[in-house]
Amino acid sequence: MTLILNGQEVEPLCDMRALIDVIERGLHEEALGHAVVPPRLNLPTAGGFFRVMPAVMNDSGLMGYKVFHGSIKAGVRYLIAVYSQEGERLLALMDAHYLTAARTGATTGIATKLLANPGAKTVAVIGSGLEARTNLQAVCAVRPVERVTVFSPNPERRARFAARMGPELGVDIRAVDSAEACVRGAEIVVVATNSFGRPDPIAYRGAWMEPGVLVDAIGSTSTFLREIDADTFQRAEWIVVDSKVQAEEESGDVKAALSEGKYDRAKVADLKEVLVGNVQGRASAQQMVLFKSVGTAVQDVMAGFVVYQEAVRQGRGQDIGEFLDLKTF
Amino acid sequence: MTLILNGQEVEPLCDMRALIDVIERGLHEEALGHAVVPPRLNLPTAGGFFRVMPAVMNDSGLMGYKVFHGSIKAGVRYLIAVYSQEGERLLALMDAHYLTAARTGATTGIATKLLANPGAKTVAVIGSGLEARTNLQAVCAVRPVERVTVFSPNPERRARFAARMGPELGVDIRAVDSAEACVRGAEIVVVATNSFGRPDPIAYRGAWMEPGVLVDAIGSTSTFLREIDADTFQRAEWIVVDSKVQAEEESGDVKAALSEGKYDRAKVADLKEVLVGNVQGRASAQQMVLFKSVGTAVQDVMAGFVVYQEAVRQGRGQDIGEFLDLKTF
Repeated sequence: MTLILNGQEVEPLCDMRALIDVIERGLHEEALGHAVVPPRLNLPTAGGFFRVMPAVMNDSGLMGYKVFHGSIKAGVRYLIAVYSQEGERLLALMDAHYLTAARTGATTGIATKLLANPGAKTVAVIGSGLEARTNLQAVCAVRPVERVTVFSPNPERRARFAARMGPELGVDIRAVDSAEACVRGAEIVVVATNSFGRPDPIAYRGAWMEPGVLVDAIGSTSTFLREIDADTFQRAEWIVVDSKVQAEEESGDVKAALSEGKYDRAKVADLKEVLVGNVQGRASAQQMVLFKSVGTAVQDVMAGFVVYQEAVRQGRGQDIGEFLDLKTF
Repeated sequence: MTLILNGQEVEPLCDMRALIDVIERGLHEEALGHAVVPPRLNLPTAGGFFRVMPAVMNDSGLMGYKVFHGSIKAGVRYLIAVYSQEGERLLALMDAHYLTAARTGATTGIATKLLANPGAKTVAVIGSGLEARTNLQAVCAVRPVERVTVFSPNPERRARFAARMGPELGVDIRAVDSAEACVRGAEIVVVATNSFGRPDPIAYRGAWMEPGVLVDAIGSTSTFLREIDADTFQRAEWIVVDSKVQAEEESGDVKAALSEGKYDRAKVADLKEVLVGNVQGRASAQQMVLFKSVGTAVQDVMAGFVVYQEAVRQGRGQDIGEFLDLKTF
């Protein structure tokens, strides 16, 4: 059978702890060299882009891809396909609008588990959209968070975020009226914005970094998207990324830091290498650390698989049968 | 809406002339530089492969991909997805087992229209499987074919092929008991075999080439697949391929000719360049010409689109609605 899962069906199947666990498993597998993850294809269309990100997971016995396409103007659609190597079966095709935000959050959760100070209780969130929600969920899943501040330029949106997420996560959330006030004293800073088109798209500045902070920045995933300044990369004493190659190719923030000479590759590590202990994480309680993600196909395929499993368990989605013939030779 | 089309539904929607026309349009578009076609990704899995082939067609306003995966041992499944750039919609997901053979045939049809002598009436087919059928259909769609000979090692299979295709195409088809006898005197030779695993996988030899012949060879699309010998490449006076890069990377036949020093790039042209007249086709009635295809994503996306259109017209397939959300910014 092949399951079709639309966006409404996928969202309630996303359990943040399950996503963190499964993506961690995927990163382990990738670090061991048992995953095949080519550079993702970013194809220009007449009015936007068509991105194709496949991955093969040889320990998990899975493979699949995410395809997303569109433009900032017209909007974007996301599809994740998950296959099992056993029987060469297409397990599921799912809308990945919410899941992309959830797996990005889960990856931030893994980074935060590895890189934030263990007792971190205070979090600042810059941004109030879907990614801000999923990233905060993930941070709260891995640290004993008690107090959260949130800033986004629209007062109503930040108030709504606080009102929604406080009860959901059982933490005290306060909306504040400037980014600088938001991050002051926070042990973990989540930057998850969509500042495209604003006169000044920079939402977080390196000048604000305080000793011991972990900054999780996830918004700049295309060359034209910005949210943290080059000083953040310069002031960070250790930088962890989810893909060294893609970060440099795809993130406008990383590109800006590179062109300003503020991206020192000697202090950049890969998340999966930190996870398996090949490379150090945080060196001291006082170290200022930056985690910058752009998203990888490993995250998508593993996240899609756990959603598929949960859908089967709960009997959700539309079963369209095995619509792909097996051609034998 | 998104249409799901299984293999049984796709086959009767494949009209060879419509496929030839639409793929020709795609090749034109590609030759003009209005298509984006990255090298296809060929990812190893634990027991086989996972191939991902996307293409963006900016004149047609389409994009999509084919994914096929599996192994010779376990079998292979094929999926084609077609999207419209307008509205960023996923139009259809379809089984592409038959369609892959049909679009390969259609591409051979385009090559044959450009490269065979205009009055060619005699065709030899080596092979009796699905690709042998679709390639012969295509050749008969572009030339006034009257007599066909067919050879494959299994007498029953070649007899069945003749009995089936003769009435279907309205031509005289005779099964013969050797490849050499099959091709003798034929103006067009179609080599469409699956000789994997045989002691001698070579099904056609350059020694058999006669003045004026066009050889269409389509079976060697992976490095481990062979069907024509290196001498065929050496004796051919002009060679046309559907993708110069992919032919050298993916075809075991081309690789063998390269390693034996019998693949002279100076006499190799790209089908789309011949189609638009940038490069010559056949130079004389006596010239011996070889067309070698490996398949491209342009062929898949354009073929998938015409099948989608026909499905809509005939009301076929399963409409699963617009299951991909449009995320706006």
